[in-house]
Amino acid sequence: MSHRNLISHVGIAVADIEEAINRYSMLTGDSKPQVSEVSDQKVKVAIFSVETEDSSSCGGNIELVAPTSDDSPIAKFIGKKGEGLHHICIYVDNLDEKIAELKSSGMRLIDESPRIGAEGSRIAFVHPSSTNGVLIELEERRG
Amino acid sequence: MSHRNLISHVGIAVADIEEAINRYSMLTGDSKPQVSEVSDQKVKVAIFSVETEDSSSCGGNIELVAPTSDDSPIAKFIGKKGEGLHHICIYVDNLDEKIAELKSSGMRLIDESPRIGAEGSRIAFVHPSSTNGVLIELEERRG
Repeated sequence: MSHRNLISHVGIAVADIEEAINRYSMLTGDSKPQVSEVSDQKVKVAIFSVETEDSSSCGGNIELVAPTSDDSPIAKFIGKKGEGLHHICIYVDNLDEKIAELKSSGMRLIDESPRIGAEGSRIAFVHPSSTNGVLIELEERRG
Repeated sequence: MSHRNLISHVGIAVADIEEAINRYSMLTGDSKPQVSEVSDQKVKVAIFSVETEDSSSCGGNIELVAPTSDDSPIAKFIGKKGEGLHHICIYVDNLDEKIAELKSSGMRLIDESPRIGAEGSRIAFVHPSSTNGVLIELEERRG
């Protein structure tokens, strides 16, 4: 595979996952998004992608994220700002090195050390105050 | 190339392009973004990507967009909402068919017929009121 994606996914906060799945199926042309529940974040997620020839996922996906409980972080986000773009996740080759580099340049991190994300990858969030108002998730590239 | 990207790019509204370029160079690992000015939108744009083996651009890029004038649409966006995620651009195979499909399902479009975007592609914007608060640009895939 010659292409290496910069963006793993873009997360969109939605109130009603079923209604949003119908809209985004039409918009993206992916009528069978991968739906799962992330219990520790109290959210339901639907991932839209373009199928590749070798069926591998190499990023560039759209993820709808809906709260399953009123105290989910996504419920709080929607309560404050409404539905809409929530975060971008970008790939990095070495997460420990990237975190060290960002810290030494004075950037504010939400996760000062890597943690394991929903799909088993090593991730860390950077604070929007250091990234022009954008919540950025860094994900270590695998394989 | 086996991978077809769903996302062409994600647009981020920033006030000061030079300062934002420094941050996003570090975040993305792309220290030489492609910088250009789009005069009809009164913006300066910096595109960050991951180089592919065949040097082709197949999407999944981050675009910083900064106003070059106070009456730029991006200046108005920043004045109202602050810096941050502005829009996602996704690829579609046939833009005329997609516009017809979305219209017939009752979605509200900003561009009811395709127009030519900054990089020469055929594009159309969908209104955020129909897409869970997200400004979505549709771009016709080329080649």
